[in-house]
Amino acid sequence: MAPPGIGSSVEGVHAVDAALASGRVERLVVERSRVDALSDLINRAENRGVFVEVADDVRPLATTSTPQGVVARCRPIETLRLEDAVAAADPPSLIVLDHLEDPRNVGAVARSALAAGIGAMVLSRRRSAPLSASTFKAAAGALERLPVCEVSSIASALDQLRKLDVWTVGLDAGGERSLFGLDLLTAPVAVVVGAEGAGLSRLVRDRVDVVASIPLAEGVESLNASVAAALAVFEVMRQRSA
Amino acid sequence: MAPPGIGSSVEGVHAVDAALASGRVERLVVERSRVDALSDLINRAENRGVFVEVADDVRPLATTSTPQGVVARCRPIETLRLEDAVAAADPPSLIVLDHLEDPRNVGAVARSALAAGIGAMVLSRRRSAPLSASTFKAAAGALERLPVCEVSSIASALDQLRKLDVWTVGLDAGGERSLFGLDLLTAPVAVVVGAEGAGLSRLVRDRVDVVASIPLAEGVESLNASVAAALAVFEVMRQRSA
Repeated sequence: MAPPGIGSSVEGVHAVDAALASGRVERLVVERSRVDALSDLINRAENRGVFVEVADDVRPLATTSTPQGVVARCRPIETLRLEDAVAAADPPSLIVLDHLEDPRNVGAVARSALAAGIGAMVLSRRRSAPLSASTFKAAAGALERLPVCEVSSIASALDQLRKLDVWTVGLDAGGERSLFGLDLLTAPVAVVVGAEGAGLSRLVRDRVDVVASIPLAEGVESLNASVAAALAVFEVMRQRSA
Repeated sequence: MAPPGIGSSVEGVHAVDAALASGRVERLVVERSRVDALSDLINRAENRGVFVEVADDVRPLATTSTPQGVVARCRPIETLRLEDAVAAADPPSLIVLDHLEDPRNVGAVARSALAAGIGAMVLSRRRSAPLSASTFKAAAGALERLPVCEVSSIASALDQLRKLDVWTVGLDAGGERSLFGLDLLTAPVAVVVGAEGAGLSRLVRDRVDVVASIPLAEGVESLNASVAAALAVFEVMRQRSA
Protein backbone atom coordinates (compact mmCIF):
# COMPACT_ATOMS: atom_id res chain seq x y z
CA MET A 1 0.00 0.00 0.00
CA ALA A 2 1.23 3.45 -0.91
CA PRO A 3 1.87 5.85 1.96
CA PRO A 4 -0.60 8.75 2.24
CA GLY A 5 -0.05 12.18 0.67
CA ILE A 6 -0.07 13.39 -2.94
CA GLY A 7 2.87 12.01 -4.88
CA SER A 8 4.20 9.88 -2.04
CA SER A 9 4.58 6.93 -4.42
CA VAL A 10 6.13 7.59 -7.83
CA GLU A 11 6.85 4.93 -10.47
CA GLY A 12 8.45 4.79 -13.90
CA VAL A 13 11.77 6.20 -15.04
CA HIS A 14 10.73 9.72 -16.13
CA ALA A 15 8.39 10.35 -13.21
CA VAL A 16 10.96 9.11 -10.66
CA ASP A 17 13.68 11.19 -12.32
CA ALA A 18 11.52 14.31 -12.02
CA ALA A 19 10.70 13.61 -8.36
CA LEU A 20 14.42 13.12 -7.71
CA ALA A 21 15.24 16.45 -9.36
CA SER A 22 12.74 18.18 -7.12
CA GLY A 23 14.39 16.66 -4.03
CA ARG A 24 11.34 14.70 -2.87
CA VAL A 25 12.61 11.11 -3.06
CA GLU A 26 13.33 9.47 0.30
CA ARG A 27 13.78 5.85 -0.76
CA LEU A 28 14.34 4.28 -4.17
CA VAL A 29 13.70 0.64 -5.02
CA VAL A 30 15.25 -0.61 -8.27
CA GLU A 31 14.72 -4.01 -9.87
CA ARG A 32 17.92 -6.07 -10.03
CA SER A 33 17.68 -6.60 -13.79
CA ARG A 34 17.44 -2.81 -14.33
CA VAL A 35 20.35 -1.71 -12.14
CA ASP A 36 22.76 -1.33 -15.09
CA ALA A 37 20.29 0.45 -17.34
CA LEU A 38 19.35 2.84 -14.52
CA SER A 39 22.88 3.48 -13.21
CA ASP A 40 22.66 7.23 -13.95
CA LEU A 41 19.43 7.53 -12.00
CA ILE A 42 20.87 5.49 -9.11
CA ASN A 43 23.98 7.69 -9.03
CA ARG A 44 21.93 10.85 -8.92
CA ALA A 45 19.86 9.39 -6.08
CA GLU A 46 22.93 8.36 -4.07
CA ASN A 47 24.54 11.77 -4.58
CA ARG A 48 21.44 13.27 -3.01
CA GLY A 49 21.70 10.92 -0.02
CA VAL A 50 18.66 8.84 -1.04
CA PHE A 51 18.50 5.30 0.34
CA VAL A 52 18.64 2.95 -2.69
CA GLU A 53 17.46 -0.64 -2.39
CA VAL A 54 17.66 -3.45 -4.97
CA ALA A 55 14.77 -5.92 -5.26
CA ASP A 56 14.13 -8.95 -7.45
CA ASP A 57 10.80 -7.52 -8.53
CA VAL A 58 9.35 -4.07 -7.81
CA ARG A 59 5.87 -4.86 -9.10
CA PRO A 60 4.51 -5.93 -5.69
CA LEU A 61 5.39 -2.40 -4.50
CA ALA A 62 3.92 -0.71 -7.55
CA THR A 63 0.39 0.49 -8.24
CA THR A 64 0.88 1.07 -11.99
CA SER A 65 1.16 -1.92 -14.31
CA THR A 66 4.46 -0.76 -15.83
CA PRO A 67 6.74 0.66 -13.13
CA GLN A 68 9.73 0.14 -15.50
CA GLY A 69 11.71 -1.41 -12.69
CA VAL A 70 11.75 1.58 -10.39
CA VAL A 71 9.56 2.74 -7.50
CA ALA A 72 10.23 5.76 -5.29
CA ARG A 73 8.82 6.63 -1.87
CA CYS A 74 8.68 10.39 -1.60
CA ARG A 75 7.84 13.34 0.56
CA PRO A 76 4.40 14.42 -0.74
CA ILE A 77 4.16 17.47 -2.99
CA GLU A 78 3.00 20.67 -1.35
CA THR A 79 -0.40 21.94 -2.33
CA LEU A 80 -1.31 25.59 -2.69
CA ARG A 81 -4.31 27.54 -1.38
CA LEU A 82 -6.58 28.84 -4.13
CA GLU A 83 -6.00 32.49 -3.21
CA ASP A 84 -2.24 31.97 -3.32
CA ALA A 85 -2.47 30.36 -6.78
CA VAL A 86 -4.45 33.36 -8.00
CA ALA A 87 -1.98 35.82 -6.46
CA ALA A 88 1.05 34.02 -7.93
CA ALA A 89 0.56 35.16 -11.54
CA ASP A 90 -0.54 38.32 -13.32
CA PRO A 91 -2.93 37.68 -14.93
CA PRO A 92 -3.64 34.36 -13.21
CA SER A 93 -4.70 31.31 -15.24
CA LEU A 94 -6.00 28.10 -13.72
CA ILE A 95 -7.28 24.78 -14.99
CA VAL A 96 -10.06 23.31 -12.84
CA LEU A 97 -10.99 19.62 -13.03
CA ASP A 98 -14.64 18.87 -12.37
CA HIS A 99 -14.30 15.25 -11.22
CA LEU A 100 -12.21 13.55 -13.89
CA GLU A 101 -12.27 9.82 -13.22
CA ASP A 102 -9.25 8.49 -15.09
CA PRO A 103 -6.01 9.12 -13.14
CA ARG A 104 -4.07 9.07 -16.41
CA ASN A 105 -6.24 11.84 -17.83
CA VAL A 106 -5.52 13.96 -14.75
CA GLY A 107 -1.77 13.46 -15.28
CA ALA A 108 -2.07 14.23 -19.00
CA VAL A 109 -3.93 17.47 -18.21
CA ALA A 110 -1.19 18.51 -15.77
CA ARG A 111 1.46 17.92 -18.44
CA SER A 112 -0.40 20.01 -21.04
CA ALA A 113 -1.21 22.76 -18.53
CA LEU A 114 2.43 23.18 -17.49
CA ALA A 115 3.49 23.20 -21.17
CA ALA A 116 0.97 25.95 -21.94
CA GLY A 117 2.14 28.12 -19.03
CA ILE A 118 -0.97 27.70 -16.85
CA GLY A 119 -0.43 28.77 -13.24
CA ALA A 120 -2.09 25.97 -11.27
CA MET A 121 -4.43 22.97 -11.41
CA VAL A 122 -7.45 22.87 -9.11
CA LEU A 123 -9.18 19.65 -8.13
CA SER A 124 -11.61 18.38 -5.59
CA ARG A 125 -10.48 16.35 -2.61
CA ARG A 126 -13.56 14.16 -3.07
CA ARG A 127 -15.27 12.58 -6.08
CA SER A 128 -12.30 12.80 -8.41
CA ALA A 129 -9.41 10.58 -9.39
CA PRO A 130 -6.77 10.59 -6.66
CA LEU A 131 -3.37 11.88 -7.69
CA SER A 132 -1.95 8.36 -7.87
CA ALA A 133 1.27 6.90 -9.22
CA SER A 134 -0.54 6.52 -12.58
CA THR A 135 -1.26 10.24 -12.55
CA PHE A 136 2.36 11.11 -11.83
CA LYS A 137 3.51 8.75 -14.60
CA ALA A 138 1.16 10.32 -17.16
CA ALA A 139 2.22 13.79 -16.02
CA ALA A 140 5.82 12.97 -17.04
CA GLY A 141 7.25 15.22 -14.32
CA ALA A 142 4.76 18.07 -14.71
CA LEU A 143 3.31 17.57 -11.20
CA GLU A 144 6.72 18.38 -9.73
CA ARG A 145 6.38 21.91 -11.11
CA LEU A 146 2.71 22.72 -11.66
CA PRO A 147 1.13 23.95 -8.42
CA VAL A 148 -1.93 21.96 -7.31
CA CYS A 149 -4.85 23.32 -5.27
CA GLU A 150 -7.06 20.78 -3.52
CA VAL A 151 -10.50 22.16 -2.68
CA SER A 152 -13.39 20.61 -0.81
CA SER A 153 -15.85 21.37 -3.61
CA ILE A 154 -15.45 22.66 -7.15
CA ALA A 155 -18.70 24.62 -6.91
CA SER A 156 -17.54 26.58 -3.87
CA ALA A 157 -14.11 27.07 -5.45
CA LEU A 158 -15.88 28.79 -8.35
CA ASP A 159 -17.64 31.10 -5.90
CA GLN A 160 -14.32 31.91 -4.31
CA LEU A 161 -12.73 32.59 -7.72
CA ARG A 162 -15.49 35.08 -8.51
CA LYS A 163 -14.70 36.94 -5.28
CA LEU A 164 -11.05 36.99 -6.33
CA ASP A 165 -12.06 38.64 -9.65
CA VAL A 166 -11.22 35.58 -11.73
CA TRP A 167 -13.51 34.75 -14.69
CA THR A 168 -14.61 31.15 -15.01
CA VAL A 169 -15.07 29.42 -18.36
CA GLY A 170 -16.66 25.95 -18.44
CA LEU A 171 -15.96 23.63 -21.37
CA ASP A 172 -19.06 21.81 -22.55
CA ALA A 173 -20.25 20.42 -25.87
CA GLY A 174 -23.43 22.50 -25.53
CA GLY A 175 -21.56 25.75 -24.88
CA GLU A 176 -23.02 28.96 -26.35
CA ARG A 177 -19.66 30.36 -27.51
CA SER A 178 -16.64 28.89 -29.25
CA LEU A 179 -13.56 28.43 -27.12
CA PHE A 180 -11.44 29.42 -30.10
CA GLY A 181 -10.91 33.16 -30.16
CA LEU A 182 -12.53 33.73 -26.74
CA ASP A 183 -10.91 37.03 -25.71
CA LEU A 184 -11.93 36.52 -22.08
CA LEU A 185 -8.96 34.16 -21.82
CA THR A 186 -6.56 37.11 -21.65
CA ALA A 187 -8.25 38.22 -18.39
CA PRO A 188 -7.67 36.50 -15.03
CA VAL A 189 -9.33 33.20 -15.89
CA ALA A 190 -10.04 29.65 -14.74
CA VAL A 191 -11.02 27.04 -17.35
CA VAL A 192 -13.19 24.22 -16.01
CA VAL A 193 -13.09 20.78 -17.65
CA GLY A 194 -15.80 18.21 -16.97
CA ALA A 195 -15.65 14.49 -16.39
CA GLU A 196 -15.15 11.99 -19.20
CA GLY A 197 -18.54 11.28 -20.72
CA ALA A 198 -20.68 13.19 -18.24
CA GLY A 199 -19.17 16.63 -18.89
CA LEU A 200 -19.68 19.48 -16.41
CA SER A 201 -21.84 18.74 -13.39
CA ARG A 202 -24.99 20.86 -13.17
CA LEU A 203 -23.84 22.78 -10.08
CA VAL A 204 -20.67 23.74 -11.88
CA ARG A 205 -22.34 24.55 -15.19
CA ASP A 206 -24.74 26.91 -13.42
CA ARG A 207 -21.89 28.72 -11.70
CA VAL A 208 -19.38 29.45 -14.47
CA ASP A 209 -19.45 32.86 -16.17
CA VAL A 210 -19.29 31.44 -19.70
CA VAL A 211 -19.92 27.96 -21.11
CA ALA A 212 -17.69 27.53 -24.16
CA SER A 213 -17.49 24.65 -26.61
CA ILE A 214 -14.84 23.34 -28.96
CA PRO A 215 -16.14 23.25 -32.55
CA LEU A 216 -16.36 19.63 -33.74
CA ALA A 217 -16.84 18.07 -37.16
CA GLU A 218 -20.39 16.99 -38.00
CA GLY A 219 -21.52 13.80 -36.30
CA VAL A 220 -18.82 13.87 -33.62
CA GLU A 221 -20.14 14.19 -30.08
CA SER A 222 -17.15 14.58 -27.84
CA LEU A 223 -13.41 14.67 -27.35
CA ASN A 224 -11.23 12.84 -24.86
CA ALA A 225 -11.29 14.96 -21.67
CA SER A 226 -7.51 15.44 -21.68
CA VAL A 227 -7.56 16.51 -25.34
CA ALA A 228 -10.32 19.05 -24.62
CA ALA A 229 -8.27 20.38 -21.70
CA ALA A 230 -5.13 20.60 -23.88
CA LEU A 231 -6.97 22.60 -26.55
CA ALA A 232 -8.25 24.93 -23.81
CA VAL A 233 -4.93 25.59 -22.08
CA PHE A 234 -3.17 26.22 -25.39
CA GLU A 235 -5.97 28.60 -26.38
CA VAL A 236 -5.15 30.56 -23.21
CA MET A 237 -1.47 30.66 -24.23
CA ARG A 238 -2.36 31.69 -27.77
CA GLN A 239 -4.74 34.48 -26.75
CA ARG A 240 -2.21 35.83 -24.29
CA SER A 241 0.67 35.86 -26.76
CA ALA A 242 -1.41 37.36 -29.60
CA MET B 1 -5.57 -14.87 -30.25
CA ALA B 2 -7.31 -12.17 -32.26
CA PRO B 3 -8.07 -12.97 -35.88
CA PRO B 4 -5.98 -11.04 -38.44
CA GLY B 5 -7.09 -7.77 -40.08
CA ILE B 6 -7.47 -4.24 -38.73
CA GLY B 7 -10.31 -4.00 -36.24
CA SER B 8 -11.18 -7.69 -36.31
CA SER B 9 -11.31 -7.73 -32.50
CA VAL B 10 -13.15 -4.89 -30.77
CA GLU B 11 -13.68 -4.60 -26.99
CA GLY B 12 -15.43 -2.24 -24.61
CA VAL B 13 -18.98 -0.90 -24.78
CA HIS B 14 -18.49 2.25 -26.87
CA ALA B 15 -16.07 0.68 -29.36
CA VAL B 16 -18.30 -2.38 -29.86
CA ASP B 17 -21.35 -0.16 -30.24
CA ALA B 18 -19.62 1.82 -32.97
CA ALA B 19 -18.49 -1.34 -34.79
CA LEU B 20 -22.05 -2.62 -34.60
CA ALA B 21 -23.40 0.62 -36.08
CA SER B 22 -21.02 0.28 -38.99
CA GLY B 23 -22.25 -3.26 -39.64
CA ARG B 24 -18.92 -4.99 -39.07
CA VAL B 25 -19.73 -7.23 -36.09
CA GLU B 26 -20.02 -10.94 -36.92
CA ARG B 27 -20.07 -12.41 -33.43
CA LEU B 28 -20.63 -10.83 -30.03
CA VAL B 29 -19.58 -12.35 -26.71
CA VAL B 30 -21.14 -10.82 -23.59
CA GLU B 31 -20.28 -11.62 -19.99
CA ARG B 32 -23.18 -13.20 -18.11
CA SER B 33 -23.09 -10.58 -15.32
CA ARG B 34 -23.38 -7.80 -17.92
CA VAL B 35 -26.28 -9.17 -19.97
CA ASP B 36 -28.88 -6.97 -18.25
CA ALA B 37 -26.80 -3.82 -18.37
CA LEU B 38 -26.01 -4.38 -22.04
CA SER B 39 -29.50 -5.44 -23.14
CA ASP B 40 -29.82 -2.52 -25.59
CA LEU B 41 -26.55 -3.43 -27.25
CA ILE B 42 -27.53 -7.10 -27.42
CA ASN B 43 -30.91 -6.20 -28.97
CA ARG B 44 -29.26 -4.05 -31.62
CA ALA B 45 -26.86 -6.89 -32.42
CA GLU B 46 -29.65 -9.48 -32.68
CA ASN B 47 -31.71 -7.17 -34.90
CA ARG B 48 -28.74 -7.06 -37.25
CA GLY B 49 -28.51 -10.85 -37.32
CA VAL B 50 -25.30 -10.97 -35.25
CA PHE B 51 -24.62 -14.23 -33.39
CA VAL B 52 -24.62 -13.38 -29.66
CA GLU B 53 -22.97 -15.67 -27.16
CA VAL B 54 -22.96 -15.44 -23.34
CA ALA B 55 -19.79 -16.38 -21.43
CA ASP B 56 -18.91 -16.49 -17.74
CA ASP B 57 -15.85 -14.33 -18.37
CA VAL B 58 -14.84 -12.56 -21.58
CA ARG B 59 -11.38 -11.61 -20.38
CA PRO B 60 -9.66 -14.74 -21.78
CA LEU B 61 -10.92 -13.58 -25.22
CA ALA B 62 -9.85 -9.97 -24.69
CA THR B 63 -6.56 -8.24 -25.39
CA THR B 64 -7.35 -5.06 -23.44
CA SER B 65 -7.37 -5.15 -19.64
CA THR B 66 -10.89 -3.68 -19.37
CA PRO B 67 -13.18 -5.18 -22.03
CA GLN B 68 -16.20 -4.05 -19.94
CA GLY B 69 -17.81 -7.47 -20.39
CA VAL B 70 -18.10 -7.36 -24.16
CA VAL B 71 -15.89 -8.59 -27.01
CA ALA B 72 -16.81 -8.52 -30.71
CA ARG B 73 -15.32 -10.43 -33.61
CA CYS B 74 -15.66 -8.30 -36.70
CA ARG B 75 -15.06 -8.03 -40.40
CA PRO B 76 -11.87 -5.90 -40.62
CA ILE B 77 -12.18 -2.22 -41.56
CA GLU B 78 -11.38 -1.37 -45.15
CA THR B 79 -8.24 0.63 -45.73
CA LEU B 80 -7.84 3.30 -48.39
CA ARG B 81 -5.05 3.90 -50.90
CA LEU B 82 -3.15 7.14 -50.31
CA GLU B 83 -4.16 8.61 -53.68
CA ASP B 84 -7.82 7.88 -52.96
CA ALA B 85 -7.60 9.57 -49.55
CA VAL B 86 -6.10 12.64 -51.23
CA ALA B 87 -8.78 12.66 -53.94
CA ALA B 88 -11.63 12.27 -51.42
CA ALA B 89 -11.53 15.83 -50.06
CA ASP B 90 -10.97 19.32 -51.43
CA PRO B 91 -8.62 20.49 -50.08
CA PRO B 92 -7.36 17.19 -48.64
CA SER B 93 -6.05 17.00 -45.06
CA LEU B 94 -4.24 14.00 -43.63
CA ILE B 95 -2.62 13.09 -40.35
CA VAL B 96 0.47 10.89 -40.76
CA LEU B 97 1.86 8.86 -37.85
CA ASP B 98 5.62 8.37 -37.93
CA HIS B 99 5.83 5.18 -35.84
CA LEU B 100 3.85 5.89 -32.70
CA GLU B 101 4.42 3.08 -30.25
CA ASP B 102 1.51 3.30 -27.86
CA PRO B 103 -1.67 1.77 -29.35
CA ARG B 104 -3.79 4.01 -27.11
CA ASN B 105 -2.09 7.10 -28.50
CA VAL B 106 -2.90 5.95 -32.04
CA GLY B 107 -6.57 5.55 -31.09
CA ALA B 108 -6.61 8.93 -29.34
CA VAL B 109 -5.15 10.59 -32.46
CA ALA B 110 -7.85 8.99 -34.63
CA ARG B 111 -10.55 10.33 -32.30
CA SER B 112 -9.16 13.88 -32.40
CA ALA B 113 -8.57 13.76 -36.18
CA LEU B 114 -12.15 12.75 -36.91
CA ALA B 115 -13.44 15.45 -34.54
CA ALA B 116 -11.36 18.08 -36.34
CA GLY B 117 -12.62 17.03 -39.78
CA ILE B 118 -9.35 15.50 -41.02
CA GLY B 119 -9.80 13.30 -44.11
CA ALA B 120 -7.66 10.26 -43.30
CA MET B 121 -4.97 8.82 -41.03
CA VAL B 122 -1.81 7.39 -42.61
CA LEU B 123 0.38 4.85 -40.85
CA SER B 124 3.11 2.40 -41.62
CA ARG B 125 2.47 -1.30 -41.88
CA ARG B 126 5.78 -1.90 -40.09
CA ARG B 127 7.51 -0.29 -37.11
CA SER B 128 4.39 1.21 -35.60
CA ALA B 129 1.76 0.22 -33.06
CA PRO B 130 -0.69 -2.23 -34.64
CA LEU B 131 -4.30 -1.08 -34.76
CA SER B 132 -5.24 -3.32 -31.85
CA ALA B 133 -8.32 -3.61 -29.67
CA SER B 134 -6.69 -1.01 -27.35
CA THR B 135 -6.48 1.37 -30.28
CA PHE B 136 -10.14 0.89 -31.17
CA LYS B 137 -11.11 1.40 -27.54
CA ALA B 138 -9.16 4.67 -27.28
CA ALA B 139 -10.60 5.80 -30.61
CA ALA B 140 -14.12 5.59 -29.10
CA GLY B 141 -15.65 4.70 -32.45
CA ALA B 142 -13.60 7.09 -34.59
CA LEU B 143 -11.88 4.28 -36.51
CA GLU B 144 -15.27 3.20 -37.85
CA ARG B 145 -15.50 6.51 -39.72
CA LEU B 146 -12.01 7.93 -40.23
CA PRO B 147 -10.40 6.38 -43.33
CA VAL B 148 -7.05 4.69 -42.69
CA CYS B 149 -4.20 4.35 -45.22
CA GLU B 150 -1.59 1.72 -44.51
CA VAL B 151 1.69 2.38 -46.32
CA SER B 152 4.88 0.35 -46.49
CA SER B 153 7.04 3.31 -45.46
CA ILE B 154 6.25 6.81 -44.19
CA ALA B 155 9.21 8.28 -46.08
CA SER B 156 8.00 7.00 -49.44
CA ALA B 157 4.44 8.06 -48.60
CA LEU B 158 5.79 11.60 -48.18
CA ASP B 159 7.38 11.39 -51.64
CA GLN B 160 4.09 10.21 -53.05
CA LEU B 161 2.21 13.04 -51.32
CA ARG B 162 4.56 15.57 -52.91
CA LYS B 163 3.73 14.14 -56.36
CA LEU B 164 0.04 14.49 -55.48
CA ASP B 165 0.63 18.22 -54.72
CA VAL B 166 0.05 17.80 -50.99
CA TRP B 167 2.24 19.89 -48.64
CA THR B 168 3.80 18.03 -45.73
CA VAL B 169 4.27 19.62 -42.29
CA GLY B 170 6.31 17.73 -39.68
CA LEU B 171 5.75 18.44 -36.00
CA ASP B 172 8.97 18.64 -34.03
CA ALA B 173 10.12 20.48 -30.91
CA GLY B 174 13.01 21.97 -32.95
CA GLY B 175 10.77 23.24 -35.75
CA GLU B 176 11.69 26.54 -37.39
CA ARG B 177 8.11 27.88 -37.54
CA SER B 178 5.22 27.90 -35.10
CA LEU B 179 2.36 25.55 -35.91
CA PHE B 180 -0.05 28.20 -34.66
CA GLY B 181 -1.07 30.50 -37.47
CA LEU B 182 0.66 28.43 -40.18
CA ASP B 183 -1.32 29.45 -43.27
CA LEU B 184 -0.01 26.49 -45.24
CA LEU B 185 -2.62 24.41 -43.38
CA THR B 186 -5.35 25.81 -45.63
CA ALA B 187 -3.64 24.21 -48.66
CA PRO B 188 -3.77 20.46 -49.40
CA VAL B 189 -1.75 19.29 -46.41
CA ALA B 190 -0.50 16.29 -44.45
CA VAL B 191 0.63 16.82 -40.84
CA VAL B 192 3.24 14.32 -39.65
CA VAL B 193 3.50 13.43 -35.94
CA GLY B 194 6.59 11.67 -34.58
CA ALA B 195 6.96 8.88 -32.06
CA GLU B 196 6.64 9.40 -28.32
CA GLY B 197 10.00 10.59 -27.01
CA ALA B 198 12.01 10.16 -30.22
CA GLY B 199 10.01 12.59 -32.35
CA LEU B 200 10.28 12.53 -36.15
CA SER B 201 12.71 10.03 -37.64
CA ARG B 202 15.57 11.58 -39.61
CA LEU B 203 14.35 10.26 -42.97
CA VAL B 204 10.96 11.83 -42.37
CA ARG B 205 12.31 15.10 -41.00
CA ASP B 206 14.48 15.52 -44.11
CA ARG B 207 11.53 14.94 -46.41
CA VAL B 208 8.78 17.20 -45.05
CA ASP B 209 8.28 20.63 -46.63
CA VAL B 210 8.09 22.46 -43.29
CA VAL B 211 9.09 21.48 -39.75
CA ALA B 212 6.75 23.26 -37.34
CA SER B 213 6.78 23.35 -33.56
CA ILE B 214 4.19 23.98 -30.88
CA PRO B 215 5.26 26.87 -28.63
CA LEU B 216 5.88 25.58 -25.08
CA ALA B 217 6.36 27.33 -21.75
CA GLU B 218 9.94 27.77 -20.61
CA GLY B 219 11.60 24.62 -19.30
CA VAL B 220 9.09 22.23 -20.88
CA GLU B 221 10.57 19.87 -23.44
CA SER B 222 7.70 17.97 -24.97
CA LEU B 223 4.03 17.15 -25.11
CA ASN B 224 2.28 13.81 -25.15
CA ALA B 225 2.25 12.68 -28.80
CA SER B 226 -1.54 12.48 -28.93
CA VAL B 227 -1.88 15.97 -27.44
CA ALA B 228 0.56 17.37 -30.03
CA ALA B 229 -1.47 15.67 -32.78
CA ALA B 230 -4.73 17.08 -31.37
CA LEU B 231 -3.35 20.62 -31.35
CA ALA B 232 -2.21 20.12 -34.95
CA VAL B 233 -5.48 18.76 -36.35
CA PHE B 234 -7.51 21.46 -34.63
CA GLU B 235 -5.11 24.07 -36.02
CA VAL B 236 -5.99 22.75 -39.49
CA MET B 237 -9.69 23.12 -38.67
CA ARG B 238 -9.18 26.60 -37.30
CA GLN B 239 -7.13 27.86 -40.25
CA ARG B 240 -9.66 26.48 -42.69
CA SER B 241 -12.65 28.03 -40.97
CA ALA B 242 -10.97 31.42 -40.48
